[in-house]
Amino acid sequence: MNPCILVTNDDGVYAPGIRALHEAVRHLGRAVIVAPEQDKSAVSHSLTMNRPLHVRRLEEDIYTLDGTPTDCTTIGMNKILPEKPVLLVSGINPGANLGDDISYSGTVSAAIEGTMYGIPSLAFSLAGEAPFSFEVAAGVAWKLASMALQFGLPEKTLLNINIPQRPAGEIRGILFTRQGRRIYHNAIQETFDPWNRKHYWIGGGTVHWSGGEDTDEQAVHAGYISVTPIQLDLTNHAGRDYLQEHWKM
Amino acid sequence: MNPCILVTNDDGVYAPGIRALHEAVRHLGRAVIVAPEQDKSAVSHSLTMNRPLHVRRLEEDIYTLDGTPTDCTTIGMNKILPEKPVLLVSGINPGANLGDDISYSGTVSAAIEGTMYGIPSLAFSLAGEAPFSFEVAAGVAWKLASMALQFGLPEKTLLNINIPQRPAGEIRGILFTRQGRRIYHNAIQETFDPWNRKHYWIGGGTVHWSGGEDTDEQAVHAGYISVTPIQLDLTNHAGRDYLQEHWKM
Repeated sequence: MNPCILVTNDDGVYAPGIRALHEAVRHLGRAVIVAPEQDKSAVSHSLTMNRPLHVRRLEEDIYTLDGTPTDCTTIGMNKILPEKPVLLVSGINPGANLGDDISYSGTVSAAIEGTMYGIPSLAFSLAGEAPFSFEVAAGVAWKLASMALQFGLPEKTLLNINIPQRPAGEIRGILFTRQGRRIYHNAIQETFDPWNRKHYWIGGGTVHWSGGEDTDEQAVHAGYISVTPIQLDLTNHAGRDYLQEHWKM
Repeated sequence: MNPCILVTNDDGVYAPGIRALHEAVRHLGRAVIVAPEQDKSAVSHSLTMNRPLHVRRLEEDIYTLDGTPTDCTTIGMNKILPEKPVLLVSGINPGANLGDDISYSGTVSAAIEGTMYGIPSLAFSLAGEAPFSFEVAAGVAWKLASMALQFGLPEKTLLNINIPQRPAGEIRGILFTRQGRRIYHNAIQETFDPWNRKHYWIGGGTVHWSGGEDTDEQAVHAGYISVTPIQLDLTNHAGRDYLQEHWKM
């Protein structure tokens, strides 16, 4: 028995990060790539429901479709893989997914979708700057994927994993972290089209972090691999008590 | 002083739901619409970063741009409104946003973005079937927006509000709920293009609910307005303890 592993990402099927991840997890089972045709960064948990999607097989166990990472996960699991996978891995994203950025991330959203289906799911990002080299991170991905299979995940929870881009000997270990807060200042630029009309371009600006000691950002900054358990339940349970008490009908 | 209120949605600036919501909250302050040009349902928390965005003013205090609900929120707050809004309202979505669907919802994501900026944010959906009539829901939106201004929200938390489509006299009240779980079966249909190639279309299928008594779905089903506090922090804090204990490095 060779268990199935679903491999996806948001940068598209030709991205070097997904190929490195695919190679890494092939040692653990039959690893099948189902990834977007095009770069789908920052699409979050988008689902394509207003048109049909077309799946193409590029080579053995490598498929692509004209949709989002969430589309790839749901169609991969329900229509492409021969059986329910024992694991979903997403990435390796070139660039970190830390703090509030998790909410926008296609890489993480694919793992959210996997978790909804009850599949242990891991999202991998390489925290650093271009040029990206995925060799060390792929080794880490192999190790953490093995541990997920061996020790399991908390219920209804995925792991958001950020690996600092450093030589293997300079990575200080693994920390289980919580999500920090990332605040952007001046992250909208103004530009003009050829007809001199003003446009806005989201991006750039300066980043400020908050959230304290044991956050994802702090861990990566200090040279550790950050592993943050992310839950599906978005309810603020303490907040319910607040509302019950303070809102007078 | 007439405080600013940002009004947005995912169905586009011409949708009847946003016009009803705009009318409702105009009694509470200067309500400014910044909404997508086109229907952006199920885009989740997508942010457009690969191209510039163009804002158009349609009439006084009604703006539209060629992007997503999250784009509208960030550009509306940073570039269009004359001052920081005291409230963000999103919707009214024609159709419920309950359980796991929250994660895909553009309506809710606009409110997540507002909350990241520290603005009290409410997402409104009308739970029912077409034809939709927004009159009763708009009255509820006015009431809940007033209460949010008067009593405040829990920190880093938005409200996801679902209003059953019923005559006002048949709405049984307001319940503070938690997010339920929605599971779809056979929610991918197969279809063929004119060249007889198979395509997949996400949608349809049958829905199963779980999560028990005090969930959003149960409340709406029983004829109550469901108000679920949704938090920005996605960390499974108990899950961290599980990992610390069970994962042997």
